[in-house]
Amino acid sequence: MKCRRCKAPAVIEVRRHNAAYCKGCFLHVFRGQVERAIRQWRMLDTDDRVLVAVSGGKDSLALWDVLLDLGYRADGLYLGLGIGEYSGRSAEVTRGFARDRDARLVEVDLSAEYGFDIPTAGRRGSRSTCAVCGLSKRYVFNKAALDGGYDVVVTGHNLDDEAATLLGNTLRWQTESIARQSPVLPSRDGLVKKVKPLHRLSELETAAYAFLRGIDYVVEECPLVAGNTQLRYKDAMNAIESTSPGTKAQFFLGYLDRGMPLFTTGREVELVACERCGQSTTGRFCAFCRAQAQILGRQLATGDGPNDVAPSDDRQVADELSDEVLPAEIYATRGADAGP
Amino acid sequence: MKCRRCKAPAVIEVRRHNAAYCKGCFLHVFRGQVERAIRQWRMLDTDDRVLVAVSGGKDSLALWDVLLDLGYRADGLYLGLGIGEYSGRSAEVTRGFARDRDARLVEVDLSAEYGFDIPTAGRRGSRSTCAVCGLSKRYVFNKAALDGGYDVVVTGHNLDDEAATLLGNTLRWQTESIARQSPVLPSRDGLVKKVKPLHRLSELETAAYAFLRGIDYVVEECPLVAGNTQLRYKDAMNAIESTSPGTKAQFFLGYLDRGMPLFTTGREVELVACERCGQSTTGRFCAFCRAQAQILGRQLATGDGPNDVAPSDDRQVADELSDEVLPAEIYATRGADAGP
Repeated sequence: MKCRRCKAPAVIEVRRHNAAYCKGCFLHVFRGQVERAIRQWRMLDTDDRVLVAVSGGKDSLALWDVLLDLGYRADGLYLGLGIGEYSGRSAEVTRGFARDRDARLVEVDLSAEYGFDIPTAGRRGSRSTCAVCGLSKRYVFNKAALDGGYDVVVTGHNLDDEAATLLGNTLRWQTESIARQSPVLPSRDGLVKKVKPLHRLSELETAAYAFLRGIDYVVEECPLVAGNTQLRYKDAMNAIESTSPGTKAQFFLGYLDRGMPLFTTGREVELVACERCGQSTTGRFCAFCRAQAQILGRQLATGDGPNDVAPSDDRQVADELSDEVLPAEIYATRGADAGP
Repeated sequence: MKCRRCKAPAVIEVRRHNAAYCKGCFLHVFRGQVERAIRQWRMLDTDDRVLVAVSGGKDSLALWDVLLDLGYRADGLYLGLGIGEYSGRSAEVTRGFARDRDARLVEVDLSAEYGFDIPTAGRRGSRSTCAVCGLSKRYVFNKAALDGGYDVVVTGHNLDDEAATLLGNTLRWQTESIARQSPVLPSRDGLVKKVKPLHRLSELETAAYAFLRGIDYVVEECPLVAGNTQLRYKDAMNAIESTSPGTKAQFFLGYLDRGMPLFTTGREVELVACERCGQSTTGRFCAFCRAQAQILGRQLATGDGPNDVAPSDDRQVADELSDEVLPAEIYATRGADAGP
């Protein structure tokens, strides 16, 4: 096979585009897709202070790499989840990446800062492990961005992530979650702007980019994610994609083009400050503080009974269930019980 | 396992309801689901003259059986597609069913009436075999109902069919096709009312009903359907259903409840009489007459060039592609290029 752009021998085939590329042209095309997403959705300004949520996996490191390459003022944010060896290796890889590029890495350790790690949260709380992990990430990403004066949080969700999440939301017709699945959520009331510049690129493409760029990344999945609903939606999408290449892109990009407008109601849920931590939420206490109190066996407020730590309305419950769909890098859920 | 209703030994488990039933109670529950669909969607009146499109498969024969059982004035309609042994056996089984119940069966032979069979149509026309088959069924079902003075055409689409079709339409965000996926399409301008009373029941349940009622039906799939897109969507849904029982029902019934209203535009395409056959369509000639002319190598109108026999706008092309999703018992597509 020959490279579509320069006719040199190809090293990667992109079936849904019915194209193959040599190393140089693939990297060029990959960056072009990221630039196109950023431009189309007005994700980043050149003078923005950008915080990239990095997990040590291929997607977030590839993304950080491209953003640095494109000249953005992009710092990394690593959240230590306390998932044994997996977290240890992830931290190491992320630090190595930052060191090699002389980039700034902000680190937050969930256990040191908030008193629990993810395995404990999964055992003690009422939420699934993936749900509480997603909730914690949303909270910490937003708080770290506010604390550090960043303009925008960037996450490495790729096309496969977005298509699988959309499939899960659509199979349940969770219309509010569907409406929020935009590649860009503008800043509002204490919620920092959040964007997903890899949403046009498949998992295979981000892996190829990381490999071709010689990026050392953690290949293993999170050990707690086994049996996760999201993985089954990915399997289903992959099965369809294998006989109809392009289905994922058609599904998610078609949603952005023709579907999303139908689900957007224009209604915005009112946000107030969490009485405990001050971050934006829809109720008295934010979902993170409620989860934390439950995990640590604390009362959030005296004299108010146990209801303070439990999800208090149907929309919260629906949102928390919807969290379970997302495994590794969870994207902010806005609207009801926004978190932050 | 014991029957949920009467505690006798169960013969069938319905996982998504987390229930098992004995023979008598299963048949009772099955009929109840059909009655519920008919009532909820006002599908049939007791004095309606009902035409059931029967293929010889489990779904349509089970449906006809239930409707006769419930006392509806239900005649059968069998369309001979000319697919060799498969069609021969289907006709035999259908005739046997009608004879045993002393029910009236209307028969139409595609080749005798319209000059082509489905294998020829697949070879000669520009449409896929499944597309031209679906188009022919819609045309003949409507025409036979009009000719015979029937009030309503009933098809045996089950929950698996509907969920797979909805998945296909949603993966492509074919919003017009999604909007039309209602269990009832009211009559209008030469289009007979069409309803799907089995849309709450899974393929497994219709097969169990047919088996338990001793109905002789054709088990084989249509030999021309191999590799059909719809089958792959069914596989994907089955994979998800196997680990999350109830997903299909949640998807399709959730769509009817929360999704469909978002897609309904209220716009109705204007229908006129096909200049050749007089049936309702959106263009000068209906899709069936255009397909037929192409297959038989005829001109539809003199002096108007070859465009008369080709799809003439994007919505027609989209509709015809969408036809390919549906294999066996195709349901009327309304709106653009309605067929009829």
